[in-house]
Amino acid sequence: MPRVAYVNGRYLPLRDAAVNVEDRGYQFADGVYEVCEVKGGRLIDERRHMARLDRSLAQLRIRAPMTRTALGVVMRETVRLSRIDEGIIYLQVTRGVARRDHGFPSAEVAPSVVVTAHAIDPARRAKRAEEGVAVITLPDNRWDRVDIKTVALLPNVLARQAAIDAGAYEAWFVDDDGFVTEGSATNAWIVTGEGTLVTRAADRGILRGISRGVVMEAGAAQRVRFEERRFSVAEALAAREAFLTAATALVLPVVTIDGNRLGDGKPGPVTRALRGQYYDHAETAPIRSSPEDGTK
Amino acid sequence: MPRVAYVNGRYLPLRDAAVNVEDRGYQFADGVYEVCEVKGGRLIDERRHMARLDRSLAQLRIRAPMTRTALGVVMRETVRLSRIDEGIIYLQVTRGVARRDHGFPSAEVAPSVVVTAHAIDPARRAKRAEEGVAVITLPDNRWDRVDIKTVALLPNVLARQAAIDAGAYEAWFVDDDGFVTEGSATNAWIVTGEGTLVTRAADRGILRGISRGVVMEAGAAQRVRFEERRFSVAEALAAREAFLTAATALVLPVVTIDGNRLGDGKPGPVTRALRGQYYDHAETAPIRSSPEDGTK
Repeated sequence: MPRVAYVNGRYLPLRDAAVNVEDRGYQFADGVYEVCEVKGGRLIDERRHMARLDRSLAQLRIRAPMTRTALGVVMRETVRLSRIDEGIIYLQVTRGVARRDHGFPSAEVAPSVVVTAHAIDPARRAKRAEEGVAVITLPDNRWDRVDIKTVALLPNVLARQAAIDAGAYEAWFVDDDGFVTEGSATNAWIVTGEGTLVTRAADRGILRGISRGVVMEAGAAQRVRFEERRFSVAEALAAREAFLTAATALVLPVVTIDGNRLGDGKPGPVTRALRGQYYDHAETAPIRSSPEDGTK
Repeated sequence: MPRVAYVNGRYLPLRDAAVNVEDRGYQFADGVYEVCEVKGGRLIDERRHMARLDRSLAQLRIRAPMTRTALGVVMRETVRLSRIDEGIIYLQVTRGVARRDHGFPSAEVAPSVVVTAHAIDPARRAKRAEEGVAVITLPDNRWDRVDIKTVALLPNVLARQAAIDAGAYEAWFVDDDGFVTEGSATNAWIVTGEGTLVTRAADRGILRGISRGVVMEAGAAQRVRFEERRFSVAEALAAREAFLTAATALVLPVVTIDGNRLGDGKPGPVTRALRGQYYDHAETAPIRSSPEDGTK
């Protein structure tokens, strides 16, 4: 079954799904995106992703291309046509197509909307979570508005590739003061020796991850002590546990940092519990009926 | 006559010129570009643009999509088919099309190449140079590899739009120490009270502009004193003259900075002389024959 993409009003086989070369997403990285999980034929945390999308669009002064309800219909139809039961939806909105010029085009230019979906192998993902992953650390060299989920991801691409080159899964960015900001495509967490869950405050230095919010709720429900603050690489190395969060990875244990083993080098109990109870705190909605039905 | 674009081996009417939605240029800003001037049916500074393109590709570990000679043929054909005599060529190379994943795709994935051309109205450009332009200043909030000419241009887009919103033509980025780095799409210059030409050294804080190099040569030929160093906004405000350089703007006088008039508010003699002698120092090559013919 070929994968199907939605592009500006049409559903097309992915190989035929194209945007004009003067789309500002292509020439200027002038666009935003979201990645949502599909699990057991249900859409995870749609409302929170749509709320963040609206914020991203507003920050860049790109107008919303359609209502949230209509976007929900498009996402569902893309998943349905692509026959995805376990996987992810990718949604991108750009400032549209216009003759190349840095300044914004006229207000009549319609934003572009692309939605794709692809399957994720749950067994492979479960194995990764069971074993834990390695991270490296790198200086955070990105621009100062990483709180907006834009497609200007080249620094993230290079950081992730540096991790892969080093035999690791993810790269953690480190700010000028030696504190971890976040991963190239994930938020970063530790569990201290005292059992306190720590992640950086979602100021401008990081993206406010949807999975990050879900894990905060899961931690609260389990009465895990929690501090929203920055932590250094040294503190992470001395931590009892560490993990990543992202819609594509959920809660993923970190077992080495820059080649140094954390604790006994195995995923820890707090991380495992948070992963195990993740879906108790995520919102889910069916793919095959209207978005109004049965949230959670 | 419709504009024509070259896209991955084919010449197409611009409206039909498209790239796949999973092109990494679209999803990750994982690509580089060049803008070359076309003047009187000749290609300006092709050799220097191609050398910079090679450097950009090498920095991102994107392989060259074809030889420089072949790229030269494609650029000429795009200009010829688009019937451009005065205008610009836009050339973009990305890491190609692959299922979305931050890390680099397999080495077999071919880079994507897009070339477009469009006309510039010489009268409008001349008028702008005669009157001079206004610039505003903004904190430089970009990533630390702006020396690479990538399509991750969203910060530049937002800065240029801020200038337009303020009734200005360009925004100058200012570093944490109060020194001007460069414009959103131009290099920044001043002429001091002593008549010395000053522009920032092309370290990692700025892009090494091709027109910047041409103006350095033009200044040397005119025996203008020259210093390659940073300058503050205060020094620019006290300068005798200021100007911008870019392939699309050549040498463009700045007459106000943040609303403050420079000198008598008119383009100065040093700037005018450098603009007037620009093409004596640029390299030109014909569009309608092979690139080996008649450089300069």
